[in-house]
Amino acid sequence: MRTRQELVNIYHAYIHCLNNQDWVNLSQFVHADAVHNGRVLGVFGYRRMLENDYEMIPDLRFTIDILICDPPYLSSRLVFDCHPKGAFLGIMINGKRARFTENVIYEFSNGKIKYVHSIVDKASLETQFLAPL
Amino acid sequence: MRTRQELVNIYHAYIHCLNNQDWVNLSQFVHADAVHNGRVLGVFGYRRMLENDYEMIPDLRFTIDILICDPPYLSSRLVFDCHPKGAFLGIMINGKRARFTENVIYEFSNGKIKYVHSIVDKASLETQFLAPL
Repeated sequence: MRTRQELVNIYHAYIHCLNNQDWVNLSQFVHADAVHNGRVLGVFGYRRMLENDYEMIPDLRFTIDILICDPPYLSSRLVFDCHPKGAFLGIMINGKRARFTENVIYEFSNGKIKYVHSIVDKASLETQFLAPL
Repeated sequence: MRTRQELVNIYHAYIHCLNNQDWVNLSQFVHADAVHNGRVLGVFGYRRMLENDYEMIPDLRFTIDILICDPPYLSSRLVFDCHPKGAFLGIMINGKRARFTENVIYEFSNGKIKYVHSIVDKASLETQFLAPL
């Protein structure tokens, strides 16, 4: 099993890969049998998911706020400050500035991300963009 | 600073405290200056938040699915299977069975929970209880 520092290094390189949309190298970080929120995506489906994210949010950028690593698990708090083009998580944003966070837990296998449990803070987006109920 | 195993033990005792609604002992686990999602609650405000959760969800029970500890941080994936009485996160549930998760990151100070970054999976609740947009 990889050490804490090895997983931390791999994770920083993974985030760099995402921010550079360096999809050719995604399989260095994402397991061939990757599962995201219970959906079996594999590395190809994972790439499609990320490409779709960038299509919806052209200035998407992943920034690590907190990183917690306890092999084979790693958890992070990611912060985003971007301009989704249309709807995001069912909320019409239409190019306005959106700031939100994601708490995400990864389980690594052989040094690659295999299981992802991701929750985006939809409630805070609603506070920014929807009138109160 | 507390070791990984010490924080893990404290966290299990904290979850036991919540599940027993043992509010008298909450200050053993929650810092006097606790901050939850950016709100300065202190231990008294933290208790009020939890009492309110149990008022809205009488059969609330915290179950740890994944626990990741890297002092002074601890992260967990909590799973819930309960029956909120009325509205929860702005979604009318009216006593029906709700299953959802929470990804939460804690920063400990002197062995107590000081900063909490919690995100509940509102999108999955909407999938269970709302018609598609």
